[in-house]
Amino acid sequence: MAKKSGWSGSVSEALRWRPGGLVQDIDTSGKPGFDGDKAAGEALLAERGERLSQLQELLYANGRAGDHRSVLLVLQGMDTAGKGGIVRHVIGMVDPQGVKTASFGKPTEEELAHDFLWRIHQQTPKGGQIGVFDRSHYEDVLVVRVHDLVPQSVWEPRYGIINSFEEDLAASGVTVVKAAMFVSLDEQKKRLQERLDRPDKYWKYNPADIDERGYWPKYQEAYQAMLDRTSVDGAPWHVIPADRKWFSRLAITELLIEALEGLGLDWPPADFDVEHEKARLADA
Amino acid sequence: MAKKSGWSGSVSEALRWRPGGLVQDIDTSGKPGFDGDKAAGEALLAERGERLSQLQELLYANGRAGDHRSVLLVLQGMDTAGKGGIVRHVIGMVDPQGVKTASFGKPTEEELAHDFLWRIHQQTPKGGQIGVFDRSHYEDVLVVRVHDLVPQSVWEPRYGIINSFEEDLAASGVTVVKAAMFVSLDEQKKRLQERLDRPDKYWKYNPADIDERGYWPKYQEAYQAMLDRTSVDGAPWHVIPADRKWFSRLAITELLIEALEGLGLDWPPADFDVEHEKARLADA
Repeated sequence: MAKKSGWSGSVSEALRWRPGGLVQDIDTSGKPGFDGDKAAGEALLAERGERLSQLQELLYANGRAGDHRSVLLVLQGMDTAGKGGIVRHVIGMVDPQGVKTASFGKPTEEELAHDFLWRIHQQTPKGGQIGVFDRSHYEDVLVVRVHDLVPQSVWEPRYGIINSFEEDLAASGVTVVKAAMFVSLDEQKKRLQERLDRPDKYWKYNPADIDERGYWPKYQEAYQAMLDRTSVDGAPWHVIPADRKWFSRLAITELLIEALEGLGLDWPPADFDVEHEKARLADA
Repeated sequence: MAKKSGWSGSVSEALRWRPGGLVQDIDTSGKPGFDGDKAAGEALLAERGERLSQLQELLYANGRAGDHRSVLLVLQGMDTAGKGGIVRHVIGMVDPQGVKTASFGKPTEEELAHDFLWRIHQQTPKGGQIGVFDRSHYEDVLVVRVHDLVPQSVWEPRYGIINSFEEDLAASGVTVVKAAMFVSLDEQKKRLQERLDRPDKYWKYNPADIDERGYWPKYQEAYQAMLDRTSVDGAPWHVIPADRKWFSRLAITELLIEALEGLGLDWPPADFDVEHEKARLADA
């Protein structure tokens, strides 16, 4: 892979979850693999956004030509980690026509009346699309585990079920890019404070977010299990330090670019006789 | 309404379909209401994109707070009119999280087994969203009428059915913004030629587009009927001259801005006790 300005090598390599790693050791203000500062990162983001946009158009064009491949970005992270900002500032750089976003909040009654993957499966991308999950099936081994919303005998088997589900997606052409965004307790406090200080941010504030802070150690335990048990070869987790928004946006942009470049896409060939069509058009 | 640089007044007024108008008289290279050139138009688009993005966030915030209102942009136009470019370059300026796009091609067997609004209704935006239809229920009085895909006794009543449908949407809080994009036969020829000259555009080319050129007068007749019969007070049609892409993008951006400003949105008030939450956060 060509070396990109500021990055020391493959970004997915630099951020990939390593077996034996500990969630409590994650440096949430780090920028692994990148040696530039904020200004450099922001300038690079704009430039790489162009590349992402080109690749997305290639993917879309191939999808239209019958290629079944797609890319699915799965975003997980505590409140205020910046998942919404990724959708706005990263996914916002590409043509919305080829994007399918879904966010998974508290399940509805109808959703709860089905297996936990039912609502998820409906939102997977089709050939040519970039799908984005703002929260995902992983909530069913995170918030659900932390708050004992179902017994352990139910959530425990879900790790394996999730791995099989993602294997099925991969087999049908979906490249799953998993990004776990980590903020520190302190940075989260600052961001919640901002939501309370600015009337234009009230709508983002939820009193329950404070309650969740009390469960931080239990969440760390649940994230640890998630990373250990669902970071597999075909669908590894990437750990995104998220105290610096500019870094998390830049990092996830590169993860998507690497995934798309990995597909080796080219413009689909004409499925018609070009010269014949030119002659027809001249007369039409 | 405040006068915007380059525009002489309300853009929806300038572009609204007038009873008695004739489709054959539409100046497809015009720029009604706007006195700037391409450079001025492009500069203004970037600036107004910011405004559109702010308003979209306001709409989204209110949707999250329980407001049921939404905006639905309906795009119609002949092949190459630039509908896809509107999605990419206009809708692409706002947060994808609050956007729901749908494009309606040839109906599937399952879709044909239902009434013509079945597939449409599923894609209408919910409160807080901007919905975008790239082609729409109007295909059922355009291509369907031109090619006699159903008998006249079936398509004829659809004008009234569509008006009722949109009335129902309006009553539930959907502001429908209808934009009919018109290119000239010559401009369409140039755009098709480009798709045949550039291998990165082959995927956009469809030999059937040339066949459709032979039906131009019948399409003009169908568009005339559509405008005459479905441009109603709550949901008027806007005629978008589309030979100049920069103008059509700028015009539709302003139509959306006017629609959103018409909702008189403000940031939703806190549904919690701000001071109490600040105290809780300080301790958390």
